[in-house]
Amino acid sequence: MSQTRQFAAVILAAGKGTRMKSALHKVLHPIAGRPMLHHLMASVDSLSPAHKVVVVGAGREQLEEALAGSARTCLQEPQLGTGHAVQQAQGELDGFDGDVLVMYGDVPFVRPATMERMLGRLHAADTPAAVVLAFEPEDPLAYGRVIADDEGRIAKMVEFKDADEGERACHLCNSGLLAARAADLWDLLGRVGNDNAQGEYYLPDIVNIAIHDGRICAAVTTDDPNEVAGINSRGELAAAEALWQQEQRNYWMAEGVTLRAPETVFFSYDTELSSDVTVEPNVVFGPGVKVATGATIRAFSHLEGASVGEGCEVGPYARLRPGAVMEKGSKVGNFVEMKKAVLGEGAKANHLTYLGDAEVGAGANIGAGTITCNYDGYFKYRTKIGERAFIGSNSALIAPVEIGADAIVAAGSAVSRDVAAGDLRMVRGEQIVKPGWADRFHDAMKKKKASEKKG
Amino acid sequence: MSQTRQFAAVILAAGKGTRMKSALHKVLHPIAGRPMLHHLMASVDSLSPAHKVVVVGAGREQLEEALAGSARTCLQEPQLGTGHAVQQAQGELDGFDGDVLVMYGDVPFVRPATMERMLGRLHAADTPAAVVLAFEPEDPLAYGRVIADDEGRIAKMVEFKDADEGERACHLCNSGLLAARAADLWDLLGRVGNDNAQGEYYLPDIVNIAIHDGRICAAVTTDDPNEVAGINSRGELAAAEALWQQEQRNYWMAEGVTLRAPETVFFSYDTELSSDVTVEPNVVFGPGVKVATGATIRAFSHLEGASVGEGCEVGPYARLRPGAVMEKGSKVGNFVEMKKAVLGEGAKANHLTYLGDAEVGAGANIGAGTITCNYDGYFKYRTKIGERAFIGSNSALIAPVEIGADAIVAAGSAVSRDVAAGDLRMVRGEQIVKPGWADRFHDAMKKKKASEKKG
Amino acid sequence: MSQTRQFAAVILAAGKGTRMKSALHKVLHPIAGRPMLHHLMASVDSLSPAHKVVVVGAGREQLEEALAGSARTCLQEPQLGTGHAVQQAQGELDGFDGDVLVMYGDVPFVRPATMERMLGRLHAADTPAAVVLAFEPEDPLAYGRVIADDEGRIAKMVEFKDADEGERACHLCNSGLLAARAADLWDLLGRVGNDNAQGEYYLPDIVNIAIHDGRICAAVTTDDPNEVAGINSRGELAAAEALWQQEQRNYWMAEGVTLRAPETVFFSYDTELSSDVTVEPNVVFGPGVKVATGATIRAFSHLEGASVGEGCEVGPYARLRPGAVMEKGSKVGNFVEMKKAVLGEGAKANHLTYLGDAEVGAGANIGAGTITCNYDGYFKYRTKIGERAFIGSNSALIAPVEIGADAIVAAGSAVSRDVAAGDLRMVRGEQIVKPGWADRFHDAMKKKKASEKKG
Repeated sequence: MSQTRQFAAVILAAGKGTRMKSALHKVLHPIAGRPMLHHLMASVDSLSPAHKVVVVGAGREQLEEALAGSARTCLQEPQLGTGHAVQQAQGELDGFDGDVLVMYGDVPFVRPATMERMLGRLHAADTPAAVVLAFEPEDPLAYGRVIADDEGRIAKMVEFKDADEGERACHLCNSGLLAARAADLWDLLGRVGNDNAQGEYYLPDIVNIAIHDGRICAAVTTDDPNEVAGINSRGELAAAEALWQQEQRNYWMAEGVTLRAPETVFFSYDTELSSDVTVEPNVVFGPGVKVATGATIRAFSHLEGASVGEGCEVGPYARLRPGAVMEKGSKVGNFVEMKKAVLGEGAKANHLTYLGDAEVGAGANIGAGTITCNYDGYFKYRTKIGERAFIGSNSALIAPVEIGADAIVAAGSAVSRDVAAGDLRMVRGEQIVKPGWADRFHDAMKKKKASEKKG
Repeated sequence: MSQTRQFAAVILAAGKGTRMKSALHKVLHPIAGRPMLHHLMASVDSLSPAHKVVVVGAGREQLEEALAGSARTCLQEPQLGTGHAVQQAQGELDGFDGDVLVMYGDVPFVRPATMERMLGRLHAADTPAAVVLAFEPEDPLAYGRVIADDEGRIAKMVEFKDADEGERACHLCNSGLLAARAADLWDLLGRVGNDNAQGEYYLPDIVNIAIHDGRICAAVTTDDPNEVAGINSRGELAAAEALWQQEQRNYWMAEGVTLRAPETVFFSYDTELSSDVTVEPNVVFGPGVKVATGATIRAFSHLEGASVGEGCEVGPYARLRPGAVMEKGSKVGNFVEMKKAVLGEGAKANHLTYLGDAEVGAGANIGAGTITCNYDGYFKYRTKIGERAFIGSNSALIAPVEIGADAIVAAGSAVSRDVAAGDLRMVRGEQIVKPGWADRFHDAMKKKKASEKKG
Repeated sequence: MSQTRQFAAVILAAGKGTRMKSALHKVLHPIAGRPMLHHLMASVDSLSPAHKVVVVGAGREQLEEALAGSARTCLQEPQLGTGHAVQQAQGELDGFDGDVLVMYGDVPFVRPATMERMLGRLHAADTPAAVVLAFEPEDPLAYGRVIADDEGRIAKMVEFKDADEGERACHLCNSGLLAARAADLWDLLGRVGNDNAQGEYYLPDIVNIAIHDGRICAAVTTDDPNEVAGINSRGELAAAEALWQQEQRNYWMAEGVTLRAPETVFFSYDTELSSDVTVEPNVVFGPGVKVATGATIRAFSHLEGASVGEGCEVGPYARLRPGAVMEKGSKVGNFVEMKKAVLGEGAKANHLTYLGDAEVGAGANIGAGTITCNYDGYFKYRTKIGERAFIGSNSALIAPVEIGADAIVAAGSAVSRDVAAGDLRMVRGEQIVKPGWADRFHDAMKKKKASEKKG
């Protein structure tokens, strides 16, 4: 980033999130397969912060586990407002004299460029004491207003209820996000009072205090109100997901991906596609999927942690689970599941198959109904299938087992021993024929049915 | 309900519904898995009516079968208008001196509270002779207008074609729904004429007749025009379904259910979810489903008549049919079908399995490709699997059969006899190896292919 | 068509389509399962053109292959504008003295009636030299304007950048589509210059030249701007698909088809349904599907090249591939795939089955997990199943094989020889019981797990 000073991110996540009605902490609810907090952390991380402090309250354990040491936490208890929350981070930032950027765990989609603009504005020639992120919502409702001049210098921050008619007519609203030098921030926060209906210490109050001191405070405005949308309910969670998905769909179409019905395709935060990939209607991408050029993902497919090679065909109704690797030109058809399995170049598994912990050679053909029996209730075992091998339909490959190149397993075989290259293995039960038995059975059963109806 | 008088519901369902182009009676077309008539009947029933009379015409047999004695029917033949239709119910209500509420079978989503307001208004101090349900549509089109004062007292009901400019500028429209005391209703209906282009007897005419008598008539207004939307075509049917689904999605999200893509989840009229249930994209709930807290319904799942316990994982691509019961923490994976089957606590059936007429003990593991063979073409038989039993992949369990606790069925076995607790059962065919056979087969087939191409 | 003169269609398809970012030629990208060029060709063909010439550039080979001789092509190289493009077709139309209709391969949804109106207008009493198709977009943006009188006689064609304020206020825009007599067209095109920023020869310039000559030129206006929407990106491709699907959904609903969630059903260009067909949410129709009256296509089904008989039930999760024929009242259930297979009247294949290259008699019952083994890696073989035959669950039918009428195949059998009518065939392996083996196995494995954890 252009600004050279160090900065610390303070992320507020102590709110109870009662409107979510959830045992899961609000900021851990996922969007596009990733907790909203992690979306925000990834954006913060892209700017290389010197420190990250997450202010936690209820559900502290959940947050600490989710952060897994990637950020420090500090406890806000009791919870006396946003100003009070930021103050809790002061101990964790003892001795730090850079800038502080205050973010909210439930406002996950602030762009790095916007954060950068906030920090940059702090070091403009007029050296504001604080920089506020403002936005112009379509309907400004009861948001607090930011009264500022054309250069973004703030005359006054005012709560909606305290605003006069002229102030309400100003549609520049306070997002709550803020940047300040550490020294200014701690000084100003120490002077915020709680003389209000809720008895809380409000972070935005530092702006009016600084202005009262004769300091300049500035607003940076985002032209995208969605960037500062808070997520407080499952409805808002779904709306954020929808917005994210729509952006991704447009992004991938612009990159040369065909989405026949974009509104029915769901991406994860890290999905990677290539040009001339075709995605049919109703496809879900879980995390960790890469798809190479020319591949077709047919309708009703579900992919997670999978790699799809050039020109592959997937589905319809294919489920690729983590560790599924489809090499160039291979094909996975309907009602087929792959997990920790490699399908070699040009190999096919077209119908009703489970390939788990398996390695399938190039050009092999896996018949309909084939099951790799990879689990004994305790351990998993591997199946290895050679190049150009042919696995007859409805076979069970009881791992660990290896089928050689060009070998054939006859249909309906349960194979528990290795098959050498070029061999045929066939497991056949005794063929029993009972002439006329079926006719007699039908007669008997029809009588039984009839007697039951009478009875 | 607050009003203490008895009421009878007269439901008009004699229309031909030609725009539906259907052999099925219009009011029997389902919305959210329930015929539209039954939606209306359920709302009426919630107010405990003394009588219910459905006026039928074409398709009478279908309606009588669908009502199954839950309401009386009377025939309107020929069909001479809505006034005439209501008159047909008089015989069925002989001696009844309470109130009569007139509803339409193709206007199924009138709220009980609205019906109550109509009946309540009938007994206000000004004792109107009739109460009309009015609404203000976004676009009032050619609806008949209700000219009323601020207390809802009607000056005049006027057909759009007869309305002058001032009357057309009034956007309060007549829904056709009406309440009146039985005695008033029969008296007024007897005086309605058919001197109009269609030669029909119109129900709303009773209002103008009563006003002409010097009686007061009143309008009750709904603020939701969708409540009185009639359904006359498949397009309107789909629109009503969409509206219903949207309301349910919002309802369940507010209750703490995560719908990652709400627009892709379809509920039935009786779906019951709990907080912290997660529903992934593309899930269809048929009638009779309950899902306990913490359960996840993954993408592409289809549930009907199923009970999903706490913390269960369903799908992706799971089909739960009527009688499927998943106990706490159990798991049903991809391409698995359950029907009249119980999956015990923590048990798993992860892949490509059919569990029909089965009972699976806690902690059991059902391998990929397992089929319960429950049907002999005439009768169904049960499979019982003990706790912690392990069913190897691609097994066929030929019911009636019982697998004991902790028992193991080896992969690929067709088991037709009981397996005792702690035993292993294995069904194995003869292992035949033909060295080099596959190589020779490949050679021969390649030659054959080549010769066919030449030929 | 009413006009009796012959016409030639010249279709411009030489554009590079770089915004598609595709190795596939822009006009070959499919909408509703058919390349956009073919949508246009079908509309043109419905008017019986005397000649069809497609002007090609990059990707010529792809276009020639796709056209497969159904139209002539001519090369535009280098590409010097739309006027220059049309000129390239002159050689192919040598001696032709009828009318010429100029269309664009990336404007695929012009209606035949519109084309007819353009050609008809050419022969109105005022005999215009050229007829331009104009439209009034919601937002006219920077489109060229058509300044015309009430009879559509054009005063001037003007590029947006050259238009004055009054001209810009006129919202009649030039679609680029045009009709002219061959002689006029070649004469006028020969006089078009390239004195413009791009140095290109523009087709619309012929209009101003003709007007300058004192000839009349006319505009025909379409009231549907979507008809002339060009497709230049995957986003526009998706938008065109969405529009097409919406029109089809409305069409089929009006024809008496129930679409419970129309927005989730995707049709092909040639899908044929009947009244009282019900389509549940999330159904995809590929090309070549016909569905007879009373059939129900349940959720998550995928049909291509399939014929579904009267009253059939399909799905949920049924995949019908080309050559699937379901006769009256037959049923295909979940996770079942059919390909080149006939399911006789009333026959059922309810679960987890693959029917390929098969013929199933009326009333037969195909058990869960049945696989027709139709492929040996080189050739396909047929399975024939007689009327009322019963195929036990988890069976493999190794084709070529024939199961007689009323015959029974026991569950779990791999059948490679014919079964006579009325017989039972059963393939059974050796039943091995190892008492207490499972208990000992569990003990051993638990110890192993424990030691691994320690280790």
